[in-house]
Amino acid sequence: MNISTITDGSICSPMGFKASGICAGLKQSNNPDMALLYSKIPAVTAGLMTSNIVTAAPVQYCKKILNSNNFSQAIVINSGNANACTGKPGYTDSIIMASKTAEMLKIEDRNVLVASTGRIGVPLPMNIIIPGIENAVKNLTSNGGHEAAKAIMTTDTYSKEIAVNFTINDRKITIGGMAKGAGMIAPNLKELHATMLAFITTDASISHSYLKTALKNSADNSFNCITVDGDMSTNDSLFAMANGLAGNELLTEDSKNSKIFYNALEMVMCFLAKSIVRDGEGVTKLVNLKVINAKNKNDAILCARAIANSLLCKTAWFGNDPNWGRIAAAAGCSGAIFNPDKLNIYYDSIPVLLNGMDSKIPEMKISKILKQSEFSLVIDLSSGKESHSLWTNDISYKYVEINADYHT
Amino acid sequence: MNISTITDGSICSPMGFKASGICAGLKQSNNPDMALLYSKIPAVTAGLMTSNIVTAAPVQYCKKILNSNNFSQAIVINSGNANACTGKPGYTDSIIMASKTAEMLKIEDRNVLVASTGRIGVPLPMNIIIPGIENAVKNLTSNGGHEAAKAIMTTDTYSKEIAVNFTINDRKITIGGMAKGAGMIAPNLKELHATMLAFITTDASISHSYLKTALKNSADNSFNCITVDGDMSTNDSLFAMANGLAGNELLTEDSKNSKIFYNALEMVMCFLAKSIVRDGEGVTKLVNLKVINAKNKNDAILCARAIANSLLCKTAWFGNDPNWGRIAAAAGCSGAIFNPDKLNIYYDSIPVLLNGMDSKIPEMKISKILKQSEFSLVIDLSSGKESHSLWTNDISYKYVEINADYHT
Repeated sequence: MNISTITDGSICSPMGFKASGICAGLKQSNNPDMALLYSKIPAVTAGLMTSNIVTAAPVQYCKKILNSNNFSQAIVINSGNANACTGKPGYTDSIIMASKTAEMLKIEDRNVLVASTGRIGVPLPMNIIIPGIENAVKNLTSNGGHEAAKAIMTTDTYSKEIAVNFTINDRKITIGGMAKGAGMIAPNLKELHATMLAFITTDASISHSYLKTALKNSADNSFNCITVDGDMSTNDSLFAMANGLAGNELLTEDSKNSKIFYNALEMVMCFLAKSIVRDGEGVTKLVNLKVINAKNKNDAILCARAIANSLLCKTAWFGNDPNWGRIAAAAGCSGAIFNPDKLNIYYDSIPVLLNGMDSKIPEMKISKILKQSEFSLVIDLSSGKESHSLWTNDISYKYVEINADYHT
Repeated sequence: MNISTITDGSICSPMGFKASGICAGLKQSNNPDMALLYSKIPAVTAGLMTSNIVTAAPVQYCKKILNSNNFSQAIVINSGNANACTGKPGYTDSIIMASKTAEMLKIEDRNVLVASTGRIGVPLPMNIIIPGIENAVKNLTSNGGHEAAKAIMTTDTYSKEIAVNFTINDRKITIGGMAKGAGMIAPNLKELHATMLAFITTDASISHSYLKTALKNSADNSFNCITVDGDMSTNDSLFAMANGLAGNELLTEDSKNSKIFYNALEMVMCFLAKSIVRDGEGVTKLVNLKVINAKNKNDAILCARAIANSLLCKTAWFGNDPNWGRIAAAAGCSGAIFNPDKLNIYYDSIPVLLNGMDSKIPEMKISKILKQSEFSLVIDLSSGKESHSLWTNDISYKYVEINADYHT
């Protein structure tokens, strides 16, 4: 099973996809702010969206569309404005974004999806959006992936994109992906446990039902496993478009080759998810957190999230302070059941707490681990067999600065 | 019903109480680090302690003591070291602290309670603690309340103390209180929903059973209603000692005058709880948050806590940014059920969101409210009749600085 990462790969790497990223003028910074993704034929499409009760207009729109349509041919995305808490007029704006895009591309309205990200509560300036869409359509090219990935960024400091390919029965299949993240990132959604926009393209021929299943399962092992600040957005969306142009035999739940596709999809999504954590607002380090030997899966999840979202743990990591006391305290109030006298905590396999007590490993040695840009943290509850992994990060001055000043 | 605040009142204001605060040498800063509280006769005592699974040795010790003894005569407290995650030796150290104090005071061991706060996981330096206890006993005076309140501080920037008096059937009754807070403050405990040390003294004559009830109920309306950083400590303890020296008729659940005592107790505890929030690590403003018209009490609590603990809301407040979008997003993922199209949000009674949409009140006007050191925030879920109030605060650069550097 050979999955290769494509050098300089993008959302346009799979056959038949074009993209563009342009500057419509939604951001004061004048950075690119509109992206368009297009498949030359309608693509089988699956989506997962936020389970926040307060959902943005484009999320409401796409949920409705995907309920009755298994296909899409284009996705129009704007950054700089979330079109959330904008009421009925906001919903109408999403409809207009889709229909204007469809008109320009000469495709069906219902085959256009919409995503928005940015400031909540401000009406979309449609006088900027409409010419933006015209411009985005004009700029569509098969090299436009990087521009698109840049245009969906808000407080991200770099674009997040990847493409991989692999072979099934001599047919080369490609999967591309792009995402944006940075803030309002927390794993607590019913369908999709993360907060971000992410887009997957593939030329694989795949059944709608299997694409949905594969997307859901790989989200559980990728976007579902990240948390930046414990806040859940109103706009989270993950879409996957599969146009079938690779010409492979249809992949379904029952195909013996589906596992190859699944692994490649999960690899793409894990890469994007980890990139989101690493580029979280003000992040200086990535923590590979794992709770092991929990009594049950729920305890493992509760404990992992409590630690990952603990402000005191996050600020300690920022200060290169192993502070296992804060970790133990967060575990203890997480709701997970364990015997504190059997609790073990490890940084990069070095024990800091053994059987509920200081391991006596010199703090200097542990601080060295914490000074790395990435390290692992294992919490052994010694209470059972279940485990749960999360990728998380520290909280720095920069996080506060960004979020105290954020008005895109 | 006249309850008067005593100017310069302290934990020693009720009759028969003495206290001291001394510098034993536990803190690198050389600030006072040991306090002692003493009643000249054994006092009816009630306590509420953390429900964190990981509890500090003194908490384990006091839980055991209070299970079989309704009285105490002294409480010995150290700051600078939490005596948590210190295993059996740590528990033995708590026993030694109690027995040494009892020996010096010539009272029964089981009438001494112990509290510790500070760094987790470091063994108590008993060679410093023992002479510290001797010194604390020697310094006991009826004016020692202020010194005691200072000695229990960790990252607190000021001591928190108050005393009030009132009359029941011509008998003057006094209640005094002191507390320390600053970090690891979150309302998520089973018995006591806050994270801090707090001590209440009174000369009221009161039954043990009613003191327990009154303490529990007023904790629910005070310490239970605060959150600084969402982290729960291993050391939270609240103790109330009532020595009966006021000579009033015994207050019980059935006394018609118990309500007066209860109101005074709640007033003392609310003062201390609010002081803890206001002096939270790096706090620049106090937010009186209230969720109203929730479907049920649980929804009101869930929603209030989600907003109060949202990093994005807290950093927005720090930046004087009303950002009701983040508030709506936090409410939406809190688990509370409501119709987002009927959601209203108010700062100091000025609407910022009405029926799920921007109220169009100029942001400048709202920002002015947020520039105050204290303001109210009301979230109207328009779904029922239940409400819940919390006192919370913003998160600043200073919070990160304190917690990235914290090694008492």
